[in-house]
Amino acid sequence: MGAVIGVIGGGQLARMMIPPAVALGIEVRVLAETEGSSASLAATAVGDYRDAATVLAFAFDVDVVTFDHEHVPQEVLAALVAAGIPVRPGPDALAVAQDKLVMRARLGALGIPVPAWAEVRDRSELAQFLAANGGAAVVKTPRGGYDGKGVRVVRDAADADDWLAAGPVLAEELVVFRRELAQLVARRPSGELAAWPLAETVQVGGVCAEVIAPAPDGGSLIVEAREMAAAIAHGLEVTGVLAVELFETVDGRLLVNELAMRPHNSGHWTIDGAVTSQFEQHLRAVLDLPLGDPSPVAAVSVMVNVLGGPAGAHLPDRYPAAFAAHPDVKFHSYGKDSRPGRKVGHVTATGGDADAVRTRARAAAGFFDS
Amino acid sequence: MGAVIGVIGGGQLARMMIPPAVALGIEVRVLAETEGSSASLAATAVGDYRDAATVLAFAFDVDVVTFDHEHVPQEVLAALVAAGIPVRPGPDALAVAQDKLVMRARLGALGIPVPAWAEVRDRSELAQFLAANGGAAVVKTPRGGYDGKGVRVVRDAADADDWLAAGPVLAEELVVFRRELAQLVARRPSGELAAWPLAETVQVGGVCAEVIAPAPDGGSLIVEAREMAAAIAHGLEVTGVLAVELFETVDGRLLVNELAMRPHNSGHWTIDGAVTSQFEQHLRAVLDLPLGDPSPVAAVSVMVNVLGGPAGAHLPDRYPAAFAAHPDVKFHSYGKDSRPGRKVGHVTATGGDADAVRTRARAAAGFFDS
Repeated sequence: MGAVIGVIGGGQLARMMIPPAVALGIEVRVLAETEGSSASLAATAVGDYRDAATVLAFAFDVDVVTFDHEHVPQEVLAALVAAGIPVRPGPDALAVAQDKLVMRARLGALGIPVPAWAEVRDRSELAQFLAANGGAAVVKTPRGGYDGKGVRVVRDAADADDWLAAGPVLAEELVVFRRELAQLVARRPSGELAAWPLAETVQVGGVCAEVIAPAPDGGSLIVEAREMAAAIAHGLEVTGVLAVELFETVDGRLLVNELAMRPHNSGHWTIDGAVTSQFEQHLRAVLDLPLGDPSPVAAVSVMVNVLGGPAGAHLPDRYPAAFAAHPDVKFHSYGKDSRPGRKVGHVTATGGDADAVRTRARAAAGFFDS
Repeated sequence: MGAVIGVIGGGQLARMMIPPAVALGIEVRVLAETEGSSASLAATAVGDYRDAATVLAFAFDVDVVTFDHEHVPQEVLAALVAAGIPVRPGPDALAVAQDKLVMRARLGALGIPVPAWAEVRDRSELAQFLAANGGAAVVKTPRGGYDGKGVRVVRDAADADDWLAAGPVLAEELVVFRRELAQLVARRPSGELAAWPLAETVQVGGVCAEVIAPAPDGGSLIVEAREMAAAIAHGLEVTGVLAVELFETVDGRLLVNELAMRPHNSGHWTIDGAVTSQFEQHLRAVLDLPLGDPSPVAAVSVMVNVLGGPAGAHLPDRYPAAFAAHPDVKFHSYGKDSRPGRKVGHVTATGGDADAVRTRARAAAGFFDS
């Protein structure tokens, strides 16, 4: 097996596939959007992932194509499949991750609990949804949203006019949640599935700020979340890593918020906190190799994102002080220029006591804040 | 800090520096001997490390030069220093690692216990050494030996004629040892030192086959070995990782066998078994960054080398069976073609019980044997 994986997209998720690929002796080749991308070390091509000819030229001699993001158009995916190139996750699964209206419909058909929702085409339909849902809704553009972009809380039917001008939107009930959770699993084409422990995620302004794994006081949610993610992975025939973002409601129910069919921010803790990281597992899964052990290696792992810091700064500038203060914290830089709010790296601390580990992780990340 | 580390040599040690460099956002550039080297992903130049012009052209714009091996000639190191390029470890330290006669003399001057030894220039001096040491000696060529090459047990003064024709050799007493141990430390230019736990190494035919960390029943040797390695690191002003290979004699003394001033096979277990791997630590040390925590993450780690296997085979060919049997073992391939006896990869198992961990590691490595 001369295993070659082609990754479309040169962001930090592609970058973080490089270390396990080096360890396993698997070749990762990246089609990056630009020179100097986060994954430039493994970039063998730079081009537009929306252009079928570009993608085919990149992918014609790889063993399997996978992704740094979900934005590759269906017609490009179809061209890959027509050329006999394995695409994992496949186009049908990706269609669900690409369009939030499709996602809601498919999850509903699988019997997975989701917030109340509707496809809304105009101001009057939105008014109707607001009236039926206590006067508030979360409105989402079906495509292209991430990290809080394309998501808006509305309390007036006129508040989504700009988006409605471009087409239908998804309206959802404003869920009153106790906390947010994420269940990460991986599935290979032959059907084997592996689940990491349920994690708690903390979002700030729609952006993941912090992840604690395992989620404290998971109780019966642990099994429930794992079964839900497994049902989704098998039901949609996802291959590779699947992240299921969940709300835990104040009355103790789990509702699916979002899906991602690739390694996900909620799983970065696995690099330092699990026997098999989500990045190694994704490589195994898309090659249809037996999956690795997803067990945690510590009682608690806490991952804190480094969001920007001063414009133009580089994380390594802060290493002398950060390393001296935190010799046991693992630091990760994505090789990007900083700007406020941009995900440019993360830190992970592990240990026995959740509060102590969280304090350490936050303090270590704090060295890059300002 | 736009940290760029130039590594001379494209073997597996350079290769294994790539993952931590990617994680930390540090750029590693490799001067490889050949195209398609183990570290080719980071190779920015291919050329002869014995040629000063080649090395200077490679290194002129890096922040620091370090090494995959100890064979760079002193005149090339001097040219780097003259050009103002930091070289870590420095030429004086490397001189000790490059010549076993120099090493024995310097260790003696530092008061470090070593086997009885002599510089032997001809058959009659070897006869004299044999007579004084029970009729047996280990003869070593001063330069260029590794993995059992350049080392020979002699019992007849004529047995080293071929080597003596080329110059003086090192003769050492044939130490009757209980076992072999290795103490790995890292030291940064500002003097900070970090020590991993003492490890036990098992050599077969002069080649490292297996490493158990921490060494079982270390007792008082643990502190003794650490103090010895620290004395050597400080005494020789080593920067980067230093491996001290030791004999534990049947009467419980430690004697230094060999030194290596770079990441070393006896420390491969640290990738999966320590908070900070020897490869990350080497990057930190040569950049004079605060060192990471060398604590183990498991009660026991066992590393087993994959030595060859059938000529022309690739480790990944065996992954389907090996991964299925050992989901919790970490597999490492060096991206080399197999041939019997060649170090082409390693596996590491971790856990609570030494015998069980060793059994698992051996079984996992066994998938690549034939």
